[in-house]
Amino acid sequence: MQVSFTAAEVAAIIQPKAARGFTSETIRGLAALAEATSGELSFLGNAKYKGEVAGTGASIVLLPVDYVGEPKSNQLFLLTENPSVALARICARIELALWPRPEPGIHPSAAVDPGAQVARSATIGPLCVVESGAIISERAHLQAQVFVGRNAVISEDCWLMPGSVVATECSLGKRVRLQPGAIVGADGFGYEFVHGRHEKIPQVGIVVLGDDVEVGANSTLDRARFSRTVVGEGTKIDNLVQIGHNVVIGRHCLLVSQVGISGSTTLEDYVVLGGQVGVGGHIKIGKGTKAGGQAGITTDVSAGSFINGTPAIPYLLERRIAVLQQRLPDLFKRVDSLEEQLREAKMSSS
Amino acid sequence: MQVSFTAAEVAAIIQPKAARGFTSETIRGLAALAEATSGELSFLGNAKYKGEVAGTGASIVLLPVDYVGEPKSNQLFLLTENPSVALARICARIELALWPRPEPGIHPSAAVDPGAQVARSATIGPLCVVESGAIISERAHLQAQVFVGRNAVISEDCWLMPGSVVATECSLGKRVRLQPGAIVGADGFGYEFVHGRHEKIPQVGIVVLGDDVEVGANSTLDRARFSRTVVGEGTKIDNLVQIGHNVVIGRHCLLVSQVGISGSTTLEDYVVLGGQVGVGGHIKIGKGTKAGGQAGITTDVSAGSFINGTPAIPYLLERRIAVLQQRLPDLFKRVDSLEEQLREAKMSSS
Amino acid sequence: MQVSFTAAEVAAIIQPKAARGFTSETIRGLAALAEATSGELSFLGNAKYKGEVAGTGASIVLLPVDYVGEPKSNQLFLLTENPSVALARICARIELALWPRPEPGIHPSAAVDPGAQVARSATIGPLCVVESGAIISERAHLQAQVFVGRNAVISEDCWLMPGSVVATECSLGKRVRLQPGAIVGADGFGYEFVHGRHEKIPQVGIVVLGDDVEVGANSTLDRARFSRTVVGEGTKIDNLVQIGHNVVIGRHCLLVSQVGISGSTTLEDYVVLGGQVGVGGHIKIGKGTKAGGQAGITTDVSAGSFINGTPAIPYLLERRIAVLQQRLPDLFKRVDSLEEQLREAKMSSS
Repeated sequence: MQVSFTAAEVAAIIQPKAARGFTSETIRGLAALAEATSGELSFLGNAKYKGEVAGTGASIVLLPVDYVGEPKSNQLFLLTENPSVALARICARIELALWPRPEPGIHPSAAVDPGAQVARSATIGPLCVVESGAIISERAHLQAQVFVGRNAVISEDCWLMPGSVVATECSLGKRVRLQPGAIVGADGFGYEFVHGRHEKIPQVGIVVLGDDVEVGANSTLDRARFSRTVVGEGTKIDNLVQIGHNVVIGRHCLLVSQVGISGSTTLEDYVVLGGQVGVGGHIKIGKGTKAGGQAGITTDVSAGSFINGTPAIPYLLERRIAVLQQRLPDLFKRVDSLEEQLREAKMSSS
Repeated sequence: MQVSFTAAEVAAIIQPKAARGFTSETIRGLAALAEATSGELSFLGNAKYKGEVAGTGASIVLLPVDYVGEPKSNQLFLLTENPSVALARICARIELALWPRPEPGIHPSAAVDPGAQVARSATIGPLCVVESGAIISERAHLQAQVFVGRNAVISEDCWLMPGSVVATECSLGKRVRLQPGAIVGADGFGYEFVHGRHEKIPQVGIVVLGDDVEVGANSTLDRARFSRTVVGEGTKIDNLVQIGHNVVIGRHCLLVSQVGISGSTTLEDYVVLGGQVGVGGHIKIGKGTKAGGQAGITTDVSAGSFINGTPAIPYLLERRIAVLQQRLPDLFKRVDSLEEQLREAKMSSS
Repeated sequence: MQVSFTAAEVAAIIQPKAARGFTSETIRGLAALAEATSGELSFLGNAKYKGEVAGTGASIVLLPVDYVGEPKSNQLFLLTENPSVALARICARIELALWPRPEPGIHPSAAVDPGAQVARSATIGPLCVVESGAIISERAHLQAQVFVGRNAVISEDCWLMPGSVVATECSLGKRVRLQPGAIVGADGFGYEFVHGRHEKIPQVGIVVLGDDVEVGANSTLDRARFSRTVVGEGTKIDNLVQIGHNVVIGRHCLLVSQVGISGSTTLEDYVVLGGQVGVGGHIKIGKGTKAGGQAGITTDVSAGSFINGTPAIPYLLERRIAVLQQRLPDLFKRVDSLEEQLREAKMSSS
C-alpha cells in the first residue's frame, strides 16, 4: 500500500478545529499510538489509550478537541470533534488507491446469459456467472467469481466481492456491499415431519436487501418460505452471521459476527446484537435493543432494552447474578453453617 | 416470481378434506395471514396465529380440519390434516417455475477433466470444476462454480448449488442438496504437538452423505482422519454448521444453524440440535435426543433425552435452575437475614 | 483410496521401538480398533479405547511402548513412543497418493493478470483469478476457483484449496494452507454512527499470516482498519472461525471451530481456544491460556490460565459453580426450611 500525504494534505482532508505543533514529515503510513513511528499518522479513538499519546512516535496525531497536552518536536496534533471520523476520511482516500474504480465492461471469462441486463457502466469481473433475467445496474461491480441468479436485481453502485452469491429472484438495494463468500438467498430450513422423514418445504420466497446494507464474509441470508426475508436500509451484518427465512430486520441495525437469527423473527430499527448472539424464531425485538455477546434471546424484547445472558435478561440484573454465582460456593457454606447452628441451638434448648 | 392458480387448481393440488366459502379470485401470491390481501393464499401453520384468521384478507386460507369459523365474502377456506404440508405442495409447484429442470450437458466454460465420468442427463453449469475420476450421475445438477474433486461420487438427482465443494474421494447419496458454499471434505483439525509445534496429522479419510441429505449454505463437513465421516439418510443440516472429522450422524437428524460437532462423536437417528449447540468430541448422543439452542453437550446422552444449557442437563431441570438463578439476589438477602436473626437470637439468649 | 503396505513397509515408515507377533497380510486400509478387520491397520491413540485392543481384527496395531498384551495369530503389534505420530507418518504416505504433487503451470481457464508474478514451479488450477501485482511463489498451489487479489503475496509451498480468497495486499507465509472457502482479508466491521446512520470506516489495512499457518474451511480473517491483522507462525485455525480486524495472534495457537475473536484483541503464543469460544475486543490473552468450549472471554487473561464459562473464570471454580447450580433447587428448599424453623423457634420462645 503506497500512502503519501503532506501535513497540509492531511489537514485539508480532515478540516481540524485546531492544530498544535508542526511536522516536516511526509505521512507514509497509519499505525496505532504505541506502534507509530516517524512518518506515520496515528489517532486517539478510544479514551482507553489516552496515556499512549505522550509517548507515540507518530508525526501526526488526530486528537479530540478537549485533549490536554503538547506535541513533541517535529510532531503535529490535529484536534477534531471525532478523531475516528477524521481517520475514516484519511482511510477513504487510501481506499481509492487500494481499490480503484474498476473499468466498466464484462470480462471475457464471465458467463453472462444473453437474457441478463447489464448496464453500460457496470463491471462484471472474471469468472462471474449472471443468469437470465438478472439485472445488473449502473456502476455495479461484480468483482470475480460472483454468482447472480435468474431474475435477481443488483442495484446501482453495489459491490459484490469474490465468491459472493445472490440467488434466484433476490434483490439488492443501492450501494449494497457483499463481502467475499456472502450468500443471499439460500433455502430456508423448513421441513415437515411425515412418516418418519423430514419432507422439504420448498422455499419459494426471496431476500430483499435495502440500500446501503453490508453483508459480511461467508454470512448466509435465507430466502423466505414464501414472501420475503428483509434487511432494512443501512443495516450492517458482520461475518458468519445466519439470517433465517422470513426474518425481517429493520433499518440501521448492527449484527456482529456469528449472530444467528431463527426464522420469522423481527428486529425493529437500530437493534445491536453482539457477537455469537442467538435469537429464537417467531419473536420480536423492539427498536434500539442492545444484546451482549453470546446472549440467547428466546422471548419478545421491548424497545430500548439492554439485555445479556442465556436466557437473555436485563443487563444489570444479569451482571449482578453473574457476580452472585461466583459466590455460590460461599453461599452453600453459609447455609451449611446456618443449619449446623440451628441444630446445635435445638439440641441445647431441648 | 409469477404465480397463477385458480381456486380449483389449488384444491386439485392439496386435496382438502372439506371446504367453506367461495372465491372468484386467481391466486397470484402467498402471504402470512396478517399481510395477505385479495388474490393471495395464506395458511394457519402455527396455532399461535389462530386469531389472525378472522381478519386476513387472503382469498384462500388453508386451515386445520378442526378450525371453527366461517370465511368472509369472496373467501375460500380449505380444511386439511396439515395446512403446512398442503402449503408445501403449492410451493413445490412454484418451485418448478423458479428453478426449472436444467438442460443436460456441460457448459463450455466448465473445466471437466477427461478422466471424469459425467452421465448423459447430468448438468454441469458454468465455471464448474470436475476433477479426474469423479462420477457425476444421472440428472445430477452442478449449478455453477461448483468443485468436485478427484474420484468423488455425486449420485443421481443431486443438486449442488453455486460455490459448493465436494473434495477428493467424498461421496454423496441420491438427491443430496448442497446449498451455496457448502463444503464437504475439508481436512479434519488434527495435529500432534511435537517439539513445541503442532505437526499436521494428514487427514486421509472421506465424507459419505446418505440419500436425501441436505447441507446448508457455508456449512463445513470434515473428512475423517482415516476411514469415514458419515451423515445418515434423510438428515438435514442448516447453514454454517460444522461437522468434525470421524463424526457419525444417524438418519433423519436435524441440525439447526451454527451447530458445531467435535471429532469422533456419534449422533444416533432422529437427533435434533437447536441453533448454536456445541457438542464435544468422542461422545454419543442417543436416538431422538433433542437439545435446545446454545446448549453445550459434553457427555454421553441417553436416547430420548431433552436437554438444555451449558453443560447440558435435562430441559425441565435447566429451566427450573434458570428461574432460580434470577432469584439469587433475593436468596442472598434471605441468607443475610437468617444470619442476622441467628446472631440476634444468640445474643438475646446469652 | 488405494492403500497397499506390507508389514515390512509399515515398519520402515514408523520405525517402531519394538514389535510383537507377525502378520502375512498386506495393509489395504486404516480403521478404528473396534471396526478394523483383516488387512487393516489400527492404533491406540487415546487411552480411553485401551480395552478395544484385545478384540480388534486389525492385522497391524500401533501401540504405546508400555502396552501390556500379546497379539493374536497373524497379527502384528508395533510399539512406538507415540502411536498417533506413527499413524500420522502412514497417513502422510497415503496423502501423497490422494493429492499427488500437481503439475506446475497455469490452467488455460484461469484468469491471471499479466501484471501478476507467477513462479515457474507454481500451479494455478482451473478457474482461478490472480490480479495484477500479486506474487505466487515457487511450488505454491492454487487448486481451483481461488481468488488472489491485487499485490497479494503467496509464499513458497502454500496450498490454497477450492474457493479460498486472499484479498488485496494480504500476505501468506510459507507452507500456509487455506482450506476450501477460507477468506483472508475481508473488510473489518467498523462504522461510525453519524446522524442516525452507520458510516463505513474504510478498512485499508491488511492481513499477514506467518509460516505454517492453516486456516479452516469458510473461516474469515478481516483486514485491519489500517496496519495489520496478524496470525503468528504455526498457528492452526479450524473451520468457521472469525478473526476481527487488528487482531494479533501469536505463534502455535489452536483455535477450534466457530471461535470468534473481536477486533484489536491480542493472543499471545500457545493459546488454545475450544469450539465456539467468543472473545471480546481490545483485550489480551496471556501465553498458553486454555479456554473451554463456548467460553465467553471479556477481560484480560493472565498467562497460563485455564478458564471456562461465560463470563470466563478459572476452570475449577467454573466446574464447581456448575455443580452447585444444579443443587440450587435443593438450596432454595433448605433456606425455606431454615426460615420456617426460625419462625417456629421465635413463636415457641415468644
